[in-house]
Amino acid sequence: MTILIATSYKPVEWVEHFKTLFPDRNIVTLGEPFDRRSVHYAIVWNQPEGSLSGLPNLAAVFSVGAGIDHITRDSRLPDVPVIRVINPNLTVRMGEYVVLHCLRYLRAVDYFAQCQREKRWASKPGAPYSGDVRVGIMGYGVLGADAGAKLKMIGFNVAGWTRSRHEPVECVALFSGHDGLDAFLARTDILVCLLPLTEETRGILNLELFGKLAKDGVLGGPFLINCGRGHSQVEADIVTALDTGVLQGATLDVFETEPLPQDSPLWEHPKVTITPHVAAFSSREHISKSIAEGIRRIERGELPEGLVDMRRGY
Amino acid sequence: MTILIATSYKPVEWVEHFKTLFPDRNIVTLGEPFDRRSVHYAIVWNQPEGSLSGLPNLAAVFSVGAGIDHITRDSRLPDVPVIRVINPNLTVRMGEYVVLHCLRYLRAVDYFAQCQREKRWASKPGAPYSGDVRVGIMGYGVLGADAGAKLKMIGFNVAGWTRSRHEPVECVALFSGHDGLDAFLARTDILVCLLPLTEETRGILNLELFGKLAKDGVLGGPFLINCGRGHSQVEADIVTALDTGVLQGATLDVFETEPLPQDSPLWEHPKVTITPHVAAFSSREHISKSIAEGIRRIERGELPEGLVDMRRGY
Repeated sequence: MTILIATSYKPVEWVEHFKTLFPDRNIVTLGEPFDRRSVHYAIVWNQPEGSLSGLPNLAAVFSVGAGIDHITRDSRLPDVPVIRVINPNLTVRMGEYVVLHCLRYLRAVDYFAQCQREKRWASKPGAPYSGDVRVGIMGYGVLGADAGAKLKMIGFNVAGWTRSRHEPVECVALFSGHDGLDAFLARTDILVCLLPLTEETRGILNLELFGKLAKDGVLGGPFLINCGRGHSQVEADIVTALDTGVLQGATLDVFETEPLPQDSPLWEHPKVTITPHVAAFSSREHISKSIAEGIRRIERGELPEGLVDMRRGY
Repeated sequence: MTILIATSYKPVEWVEHFKTLFPDRNIVTLGEPFDRRSVHYAIVWNQPEGSLSGLPNLAAVFSVGAGIDHITRDSRLPDVPVIRVINPNLTVRMGEYVVLHCLRYLRAVDYFAQCQREKRWASKPGAPYSGDVRVGIMGYGVLGADAGAKLKMIGFNVAGWTRSRHEPVECVALFSGHDGLDAFLARTDILVCLLPLTEETRGILNLELFGKLAKDGVLGGPFLINCGRGHSQVEADIVTALDTGVLQGATLDVFETEPLPQDSPLWEHPKVTITPHVAAFSSREHISKSIAEGIRRIERGELPEGLVDMRRGY
């Protein structure tokens, strides 16, 4: 039984991890000759179009990340289960990122940095505390719910928005569907996007949506934090929203094109904070173990954690 | 019954709050004539030496902050109960500050800001996650325990140090006394100081102590966050420690002299983050209500929350 590594970035490093985890199996990469009939599992990130077709015994495709849009854009993807990483390490890291950047805005880190450069000892007038600030999390799955619970415990007023109705969550207001979106946005001072990329969410972070965010908040206007998917955002609209005061600031971990091109106006925009798609990176060691556990579950006849519902797209 | 406002900063604003809370009582400030025998309570911040003596019916002194060192340095302070503010709002704000600045160091905010200025798309090699980082909180009272629980929930490896032995705390290693200090420091990557100012803690944050912090941590060396009292730190030693690599960075909310003098080398030090004693500011409204509740408890014959043990000094 062969495991095929089909990642666009450093496939050889994945080979090393899976050789350790499955010493009795054959671990191959796309770039070398292998028996296509022997492949049972593919470990994938951003594979070349069609590279997973013609594998008659392929039982499952594992994403090395939390998203699968980089897999499903392949029009020749075979009809097999796709499994994404659900990994406590990844969840912890996303929580760190979301809490950090909400607190950065709450506690006016940029304002105090400017005061320090001017050697100026000055409180920020009317500085709110977390209970006065309404964070809205778009995408309330495993990552969203974890970040929401942590923000709530820090003190923020938290709501979530999901595509479909969820069970109620303790202490967090949940909005859902198209009908719930406007009410959710109208009570949101800091919008955190953790949506998966689907045809419904492509370009959802646009000027029209930003215009529906709360204008009456204690932070003086809304902020955006996108640590979901780059194609959920319209970057030209983010710049317009920042320049016209519709948004007060944006923290972006993901972009329409990655790496972010040198000529993007986002790099130098004074109201933009950029991180290079590192919000919830996980170590190869953690991800490999998580995928190995998924393979073992399948071979025991169980459902692996992170099995994607392909109709929903996540 | 008169309530005397003896704060060095904007006493008239406190008068307004207490007039609303106690409409039937006389609220006076130090600057006006009043019957000294009628004063039962004093609301105090940094009062002039001796200004609370000669008040024969004074029943209690209330600090408008969490600390009382600004009160007890008055050699003519009468022997009456001193009560400090223990206020959920203050606790929440301190938690925000501590979590924010621990996450700033964990998630290398300064590194990514520099990358953005250089338009450079670059992960930080070997970036750790919170479980790999050992935060040590000196002073594990109400504020320290709250911050510790929040850091733990974010994912950090947390320990506390207290002057005297405490009951064990769930999930947090507690060290205590002089004997426990070295072991506590040796396992600490980010040192958070929330100690009260007493004769034992004056100047405790010095070069000798910094030299005992963990050198083997995943952040590449230790960091200091002081949001306790300025006189706990030796600022010349902080600069030396930063310049010699004993410390990697310092976030300081309090200083030996406040406001921080213009000629302090801390302002321009690239490894120092300065905030102007705002870590756990609370609103006058919240503090006034908290003090009013303390007065009512005393008048019902109960102990007010925040009663200071004068032998310990906090």
